[in-house]
Amino acid sequence: MWIRDLSALECSKILASERLAHLACVDGRQPYLVPIYFVYSDHHLYSFSMPGHKIDCMRSNPHICLQVDERGQGPGWKSVIVQGRYQELDVSPELVREREHAWSLLSKHPFWWEPGSLKPIGQAVPRSADHYEHIYFRVLIDSVTGREAKDPGTQVP
Amino acid sequence: MWIRDLSALECSKILASERLAHLACVDGRQPYLVPIYFVYSDHHLYSFSMPGHKIDCMRSNPHICLQVDERGQGPGWKSVIVQGRYQELDVSPELVREREHAWSLLSKHPFWWEPGSLKPIGQAVPRSADHYEHIYFRVLIDSVTGREAKDPGTQVP
Repeated sequence: MWIRDLSALECSKILASERLAHLACVDGRQPYLVPIYFVYSDHHLYSFSMPGHKIDCMRSNPHICLQVDERGQGPGWKSVIVQGRYQELDVSPELVREREHAWSLLSKHPFWWEPGSLKPIGQAVPRSADHYEHIYFRVLIDSVTGREAKDPGTQVP
Repeated sequence: MWIRDLSALECSKILASERLAHLACVDGRQPYLVPIYFVYSDHHLYSFSMPGHKIDCMRSNPHICLQVDERGQGPGWKSVIVQGRYQELDVSPELVREREHAWSLLSKHPFWWEPGSLKPIGQAVPRSADHYEHIYFRVLIDSVTGREAKDPGTQVP
């Protein structure tokens, strides 16, 4: 297996083609980590969520990290890491355009409101994706890095 | 799609059957997130790594979070989140047994030293997995929680 750093363009292509990320945020000194769905557009990652622990963490400390995998059938992989800051797209007038942009991007995908809108059985579940409790947010990107690992039999670039 | 909390036993089974996790650690107020390989044994997660940013973070702040996915072909998934603390299994005499235990667990898997032993092309690469710079560590588990999401067509338990 050999490994190499990805270029900025290669990282952008992976962010544009994938939808599933892992998001890390921090509660005091304790990190917290969950999978999320996102859409990459105009150098931001857009997503949405129900209220909960990750939203509480990101409101308290906006520094977050996301990691996106691209895996095929073989042992090789590509991995992109985004360091950035949480920006909540609330209902304030100055953010209405960004909030609508987030909705228009996310709603292009089937079942886009899952799992962000889901709560476990026995807890309150909203009836639709436009329920007032849904929180749209985007990631203001500070840095993007990436790596690729490939089979030893493949040519090193 | 419906969602439910997993029992402690269900979480343990997933940790015992999977090898790939996402690990979040913290550098000051900034989280950092990487995929790692691990083995679950006697209520610890064992792994190893080359020196680098995640090791620096965990030495500075031992609080970490790991997330493990179990995904099939369909849209359903299971996700387990482990909150815990980093313990480095260094070469001190009181940890020699735990370090050997980590090695014996990890070395059962083919290519177990990848990607932990890999550095990008152009950076120094160790020649073998027992290179002195390799760092074995385990996670002292504080809490484990899990969720399962299933197709709406499947029966709610």
